[in-house]
Amino acid sequence: MRLGATAVRALTKAVGEEHVRFTPGELAPYRRDATPLFTGHPDAVVFPADTGEVAAVLGVATEHGIPVVPRGAGSNLCAATVPSHGGIVLVLTRLNRILELSRDELLARVQPGVAVARLAETAAHAGLLYPPDPGSRGVATVGGTIATCAGGLRGLKYGVTRNYVLGLEAVLPTGETIRTGGRLWKDVAGYDLTRLLTGSEGTLAVITEATVALLPMPSHSRTGVAYFGSLAEAGQAVSAILAAGVVPATLEFLDRKCVAAVEAHARLGLRTDAGALLLFGDDGPIEVVAGNMVRIRTLCTEAGAWETTLAEDVAAADALLAARRCSLPALSRLGALTILEDATVPRPRLADMVARIDEIADRHGLHIATFGHAGDGNLHPTCVLDPGEHGAADRAHKAFAEIFAAALELGGTITGEHGVGAAKLPFLADRVGDAQLALLRRVKQAFDPAGILNPGKLGS
Amino acid sequence: MRLGATAVRALTKAVGEEHVRFTPGELAPYRRDATPLFTGHPDAVVFPADTGEVAAVLGVATEHGIPVVPRGAGSNLCAATVPSHGGIVLVLTRLNRILELSRDELLARVQPGVAVARLAETAAHAGLLYPPDPGSRGVATVGGTIATCAGGLRGLKYGVTRNYVLGLEAVLPTGETIRTGGRLWKDVAGYDLTRLLTGSEGTLAVITEATVALLPMPSHSRTGVAYFGSLAEAGQAVSAILAAGVVPATLEFLDRKCVAAVEAHARLGLRTDAGALLLFGDDGPIEVVAGNMVRIRTLCTEAGAWETTLAEDVAAADALLAARRCSLPALSRLGALTILEDATVPRPRLADMVARIDEIADRHGLHIATFGHAGDGNLHPTCVLDPGEHGAADRAHKAFAEIFAAALELGGTITGEHGVGAAKLPFLADRVGDAQLALLRRVKQAFDPAGILNPGKLGS
Repeated sequence: MRLGATAVRALTKAVGEEHVRFTPGELAPYRRDATPLFTGHPDAVVFPADTGEVAAVLGVATEHGIPVVPRGAGSNLCAATVPSHGGIVLVLTRLNRILELSRDELLARVQPGVAVARLAETAAHAGLLYPPDPGSRGVATVGGTIATCAGGLRGLKYGVTRNYVLGLEAVLPTGETIRTGGRLWKDVAGYDLTRLLTGSEGTLAVITEATVALLPMPSHSRTGVAYFGSLAEAGQAVSAILAAGVVPATLEFLDRKCVAAVEAHARLGLRTDAGALLLFGDDGPIEVVAGNMVRIRTLCTEAGAWETTLAEDVAAADALLAARRCSLPALSRLGALTILEDATVPRPRLADMVARIDEIADRHGLHIATFGHAGDGNLHPTCVLDPGEHGAADRAHKAFAEIFAAALELGGTITGEHGVGAAKLPFLADRVGDAQLALLRRVKQAFDPAGILNPGKLGS
Repeated sequence: MRLGATAVRALTKAVGEEHVRFTPGELAPYRRDATPLFTGHPDAVVFPADTGEVAAVLGVATEHGIPVVPRGAGSNLCAATVPSHGGIVLVLTRLNRILELSRDELLARVQPGVAVARLAETAAHAGLLYPPDPGSRGVATVGGTIATCAGGLRGLKYGVTRNYVLGLEAVLPTGETIRTGGRLWKDVAGYDLTRLLTGSEGTLAVITEATVALLPMPSHSRTGVAYFGSLAEAGQAVSAILAAGVVPATLEFLDRKCVAAVEAHARLGLRTDAGALLLFGDDGPIEVVAGNMVRIRTLCTEAGAWETTLAEDVAAADALLAARRCSLPALSRLGALTILEDATVPRPRLADMVARIDEIADRHGLHIATFGHAGDGNLHPTCVLDPGEHGAADRAHKAFAEIFAAALELGGTITGEHGVGAAKLPFLADRVGDAQLALLRRVKQAFDPAGILNPGKLGS
């Protein structure tokens, strides 16, 4: 317990006694997020009810020089919500109201603690689509997914979270509340702070409200699967599909190891003899979707697919999507510890990158299976290991350092959609260079001169 | 001439004698941009050939404390490229190569001096679409339109320039060259400097290369027109179209005064007795476009349209689009001076806003016609006046101040797609508030501690 009695009293006053926790047992769940091997030691966990209380907590933190780590559901995968410097974990799940949903203006105004799936379902009831759909969307919050600029399975056609954030309310670490953007599709009054805060991982300001764009719900959708002898052929199919002018909503892949794990776990009837599985899907008017399915199947066959199958109905489509969505849980069953990564390369280098990953895994004696977003070149190499095995975690760290280096060598990046956090910070300079890293730090300082907001993360 | 002999020698050395101008006659064209009533006094105009020369010029400017105003075609409409503090006008039109166009990766890599229309035509030859299409696209450069986050006639369905910028190379005023983003659709390594530089109006860094996303070219497009008795009814039609789940590429409007001016100028056969003209258009697969045209026409009729007409062929569609695109030249013929503005409101307030504009114009005895992007709520009230008439310019300034205040009152903004520049800077605090304005200045300082880049504009 490093907080002084004055700070404790001030925090208690800011949010009410029942919404602040100090005991080790109560703090324990907030020592980590969904990132393995990263832990911190929070001094307090605080649950504000509204923007005013967030500002009050930040005021206390500034006055006493206490680090503040904003957090939604804690499903972050790069240790961006781990309190690595101690201090206050600021949990925003009580700000959980959908304030407005407008069919007329195609937008919603929501508080940061609303789960993405809840926003999407509410929108769907009104015939509207909120496209960002990260794997964790059942628990991940709107605030958290904006703070990480989360992606998902529909990024190719629909883009990522950034494309749907119209405006933000945010509290600066210096205490002021600002509103950026708003309800407008076009607004260039001032630097684009809306997009700067999107993806800033809780290091620049605390998001307390978001206005997000929605789309009319597509009337139809279809999903299918193609099996290939090798990932190289699947990669060629992806290139051929895009070059043919088809940009479907979904183009996901599983490598051989991943298909085996999923089939063993979920018994979906997948072909485990194939070198790669490509999941494709599209939505829109029925004639467009039907036409695209025909073209995608033809192009897959031309690229060497062993077979292609369309899901006959919604249940069958859901089963196929489940194959992709359960990749992580299926792999997790293979070992006590699962490290899910997020390297990304230009689309045409996808197969090269998976080959590099396999080579690196073999050399380090590790089981790394890879799945991901073939349309975006966004890969999730996933290492399953027994942390009790001597040196296994060290070997995994070394392997991932090599994987990031390989991604950069192929013109890619160290993270496509998970973020930098504490986990990827050591690799950031390799991606952006020293001059840009220094600039990122100056931008951080412009927002947070005292450095109280999420220290040890992006901008540090 | 305020530049010392050393600075003159250094600039000459940086770009070569034939690419730097100092004489009053040579400087004259660079005293202004496309914004009326704003002029500056440049001390030198410099035409660098590449990134290295841009860096060298910025080095000289830093050493001697000389302001630098980056400029493309100078078609800016908010005086963002006027050298209001003198110094160097840095003209980027020699960096005019399309470096790469990839059908496979759906992207182009271009230098900043390439005209938007040239990029779009080159992409079209490869079967690809570059959606941003500001009215000035024939001359406006890619660099300039990124620096302003330009919009255009397709913003509703396709978004604005921001949505298509994947990566940038830029020279910081401190001399370093950075590369942000890249060829990847998903990349969250670091703060989103790509989007921060987009719309930064040449105040943070000089863009020297851009990687932009392209889309497959839609196979079909149709354009039509609807006439309404009032703008209020046209506004209701727009709301009904969007609420019905139709998001067409184009939904543009002209008010009565605008239709009259266009018809007098271009003799397109428009109905001048109507209160408003709504231009609609969509692109995509033929069956989707055809279906949307039927739905839009039905919804317009239900909202009270007098008549709706579809262009029979491409020539007829071009004529209709010309009606919208020639609004500005048509209005310009009515007076010696034309002030084109850019206030924006939430879509449902469009008709209210035009009514406010008309009331303000009448009260100040001004001729202000309004056209714009109905789908985005982005209006271009355009004032035509005789600057020789005593007090006319003053009255126009007063009227526009009231128009901006009205836009803000209706939940809108002072600029949707033109930018802040020097022209709108006095109104920026009203839009973003004092705390955010101070923050914008700190962001500016993080990039440009010496304040040499485009002083007197955004960030000042």
